[in-house]
Amino acid sequence: MHDRIRHPASRQRITSADHAAALIENGMTLGLSGFARAGDAKAVPHALVKRAAQMPLHIGLMSGASLGHDTDRLLTEAGVLSRRFPFQTDPTLRRAINHGDVAFIDQHLSQTAERLRAGHLPAIDVAVIEAAAITETGAIVPTMSVGNAPVFAQLARQIVIELNTSVPAAIEGLHDIYMPGSRPQRGPMELGSVSQRIGGSAISVDPDRIAAIVMTDQADSPSHALPSDPETDQIAGHINDFLYNEVHHTRLQRSLLPLQVGVGTIANAVLHGFLDAPFDGLSLYSEVLQDSTFELLDAGKLLFASASAITVSAPVQHRFMEQIEHYRERIVLRPQEISNAPELVRRLGIIAINTALEFDLYGNVNSTHVSGTHMMNGIGGSGDFARNAHLSIFVSKSIAKGGDVSCVVPMVSHVDHTEHDVDVLVTEVGLADLRGLSPRERARAVIEHCVHPSYRDALRDYFNRACLRGGQTPHVLEEAFSWHQRQRETGSMREGGSALRVA
Amino acid sequence: MHDRIRHPASRQRITSADHAAALIENGMTLGLSGFARAGDAKAVPHALVKRAAQMPLHIGLMSGASLGHDTDRLLTEAGVLSRRFPFQTDPTLRRAINHGDVAFIDQHLSQTAERLRAGHLPAIDVAVIEAAAITETGAIVPTMSVGNAPVFAQLARQIVIELNTSVPAAIEGLHDIYMPGSRPQRGPMELGSVSQRIGGSAISVDPDRIAAIVMTDQADSPSHALPSDPETDQIAGHINDFLYNEVHHTRLQRSLLPLQVGVGTIANAVLHGFLDAPFDGLSLYSEVLQDSTFELLDAGKLLFASASAITVSAPVQHRFMEQIEHYRERIVLRPQEISNAPELVRRLGIIAINTALEFDLYGNVNSTHVSGTHMMNGIGGSGDFARNAHLSIFVSKSIAKGGDVSCVVPMVSHVDHTEHDVDVLVTEVGLADLRGLSPRERARAVIEHCVHPSYRDALRDYFNRACLRGGQTPHVLEEAFSWHQRQRETGSMREGGSALRVA
Repeated sequence: MHDRIRHPASRQRITSADHAAALIENGMTLGLSGFARAGDAKAVPHALVKRAAQMPLHIGLMSGASLGHDTDRLLTEAGVLSRRFPFQTDPTLRRAINHGDVAFIDQHLSQTAERLRAGHLPAIDVAVIEAAAITETGAIVPTMSVGNAPVFAQLARQIVIELNTSVPAAIEGLHDIYMPGSRPQRGPMELGSVSQRIGGSAISVDPDRIAAIVMTDQADSPSHALPSDPETDQIAGHINDFLYNEVHHTRLQRSLLPLQVGVGTIANAVLHGFLDAPFDGLSLYSEVLQDSTFELLDAGKLLFASASAITVSAPVQHRFMEQIEHYRERIVLRPQEISNAPELVRRLGIIAINTALEFDLYGNVNSTHVSGTHMMNGIGGSGDFARNAHLSIFVSKSIAKGGDVSCVVPMVSHVDHTEHDVDVLVTEVGLADLRGLSPRERARAVIEHCVHPSYRDALRDYFNRACLRGGQTPHVLEEAFSWHQRQRETGSMREGGSALRVA
Repeated sequence: MHDRIRHPASRQRITSADHAAALIENGMTLGLSGFARAGDAKAVPHALVKRAAQMPLHIGLMSGASLGHDTDRLLTEAGVLSRRFPFQTDPTLRRAINHGDVAFIDQHLSQTAERLRAGHLPAIDVAVIEAAAITETGAIVPTMSVGNAPVFAQLARQIVIELNTSVPAAIEGLHDIYMPGSRPQRGPMELGSVSQRIGGSAISVDPDRIAAIVMTDQADSPSHALPSDPETDQIAGHINDFLYNEVHHTRLQRSLLPLQVGVGTIANAVLHGFLDAPFDGLSLYSEVLQDSTFELLDAGKLLFASASAITVSAPVQHRFMEQIEHYRERIVLRPQEISNAPELVRRLGIIAINTALEFDLYGNVNSTHVSGTHMMNGIGGSGDFARNAHLSIFVSKSIAKGGDVSCVVPMVSHVDHTEHDVDVLVTEVGLADLRGLSPRERARAVIEHCVHPSYRDALRDYFNRACLRGGQTPHVLEEAFSWHQRQRETGSMREGGSALRVA
């Protein structure tokens, strides 16, 4: 206890989760630690669900990104959530959002902190932050993510700490907590390499604002990512070939430039693919470290990884905890406004690899909205990276739902990333290098290299008819969403419906 | 002559525009100075038009932004242009682009330099740079813009200088030429305020690469901007009221934060509107300085203005030239990768005011494509600013073409700026403050405050029916472009066609 709470006065604040949850009142806005299911506040949100059974309780909830432990599901089922920022991945919450029951504000993950400081979002009443320790000065040592915890702690009227003893105390030193100064006299982020540290190892707060400390010992929820499959292996292969060609033409060195890889199965598989690639001395400057990061670190392919969270399977989580002193020299976790900072993404020259839900002829990308209307998760950090990257690569399988959905469409039904921010598109079919191409040239590359063969003729036919109408970005506007409409009506984007389903 | 070409060896390179143009061969890529019609290469491009009459000549052309002197028109008519980057505003070129005759690569204006250095675009064979002087070391002193001239001069195999004696030699010292270093060891841009200088006053080049110097004396083409009108005055008034309310709530000081204002009539009128606003000690960190900038400087409202170009009417151009020593203390011109740098836009906390062609229910903005297909000018720098601004404001009149076109539509026919990057929307009808709102809440604000009354019921009806289908961003996908289709078929977006045209 004395090792974990080194600030003596704070030891008086230890209490139960139920007592801590009683600080949270109807109408408040909460800031919870947690990013991609890592380092999330666990006990107090669950106590809040119980509290909601006894009294009306409607709150706004901000986090870093997604939370684990079914927190979003339980809060949604209890009717507690009225507003949710800036990202989520929970199926129950997703249904409530799409039903219009929860107001979801989907944000670039680097921007929530800035907007809070600017007073453009509701003020944080209570921050609930998971910690591995409280230092002599009352500073908070984070656990498996940093996320938005620093800004929540900085701005909240009251702070609740969940002190999680399942995380080794040796995690202290893994984090680099730097916060931008006030405008307009703010200075640069003086970070010049992936491994550099520019801040402190803990979140400085006035300890008088620590209203409660709750002891916990629950591990993070493990990662959702599925293993690679033949299509994701092909996607990884196309990316490796492309990058190797860049090295061959001396546009990149064998160490490439720092990689950012999105969260999820395809992205994880792409990074896994670097195990067999002819590159050495790699580095990551990313949001989330997944299992593949540890494979590459252990294989000596990857020298250093910077991110805001570690979200891994249970075995990798165990390995990390066991060898934390080893990994602490090779990994740094930063606030998400630093891991995703446009300033740093452009300076370092990141190679960004993110996942598309669908993309179109001209290379516009939909990352979020099924059929243009229904939210999946949120834009996350993809826009922070894609806009400013040295190379912005988006990946997707060419078809979904057994071939009833083409992920390459005439026009995306929702735009998260415009063609300006998309350099390379990859499906298992192939890779379209769109750099320096006009929209019509981009369309020809997408038709040739990315669309599934079973949709290629239809896409080419659309493009040819659109070109007859002219324009920089030709479209037959009244047919632009006809594939989506056909799917809505017949269950399949194919002409003739799903009878033509491929194997 | 000795004052203007202080590097003695370079004086040997003086030649005619025709001789200089003979350096340019079929298939080459050219980099021309020039941004928003300011500081553009004039004589050599026109000589190139003559040369094209004698031989096959097809080139790729890069500039900072738009060129003056009908250069794009003449080159298009002569059939010289095969590719054009990254912006244009010429009606003849626009037709050729939309006809598919010229490949137009529309880019965020901060990014062309970065992509050239990365080898992602065709290499520059010849750079043609307008200069006011050549220094003792052979460095190039720019004229009324900086734009991409530094990167073109840095990378080109050969450099042609157009030495324009109509620009006073006293312009030397107006410019701040800073170029980012090589990746991955690049350092920060150490710029902490609008007036700070972090580079030299001229573009350093190896003088051996200066292949020719052409003497010219032609002034820049004057600005296109029209005077303000009742609608633009109302838009300016809504913005002033909004910003004053921010000051009242202590979210901004009376000096606000540095302003960026897009190019054109509405933006110029908005800036003009600050003359009567209750703000003091303003600063600009923008792309282009227009007439309104000089009104505000002369009135003492504006203390300092940073940009990449000065594009003004003939009288203001004359005044600037006469009092250049005075203005040189209050203005700095920078390379466009610095004036538009995401790193600096976010650090300084810019209030960005840009023009929309149309915007939709949810706050997505179309800045470029008429009816989703036909290019107007290009995205310009709006994406550099909007994504990273402290406040991103987009302005548009609510209707166009005498009311046959609503600039507020169910779904924009092309997306340049996603809802994530749009905080405030303004028409003459009113202002919608979208900060912290979910998409459905944004739609209600847009319907109430921005859409023209004659389209309000139709937009509300669309939104209500869309909500019945559900979703985070509700749409009736098969009707999303029905207003655009109706305009295509009947000449008006109104139900019943243009018979209901408003006065």
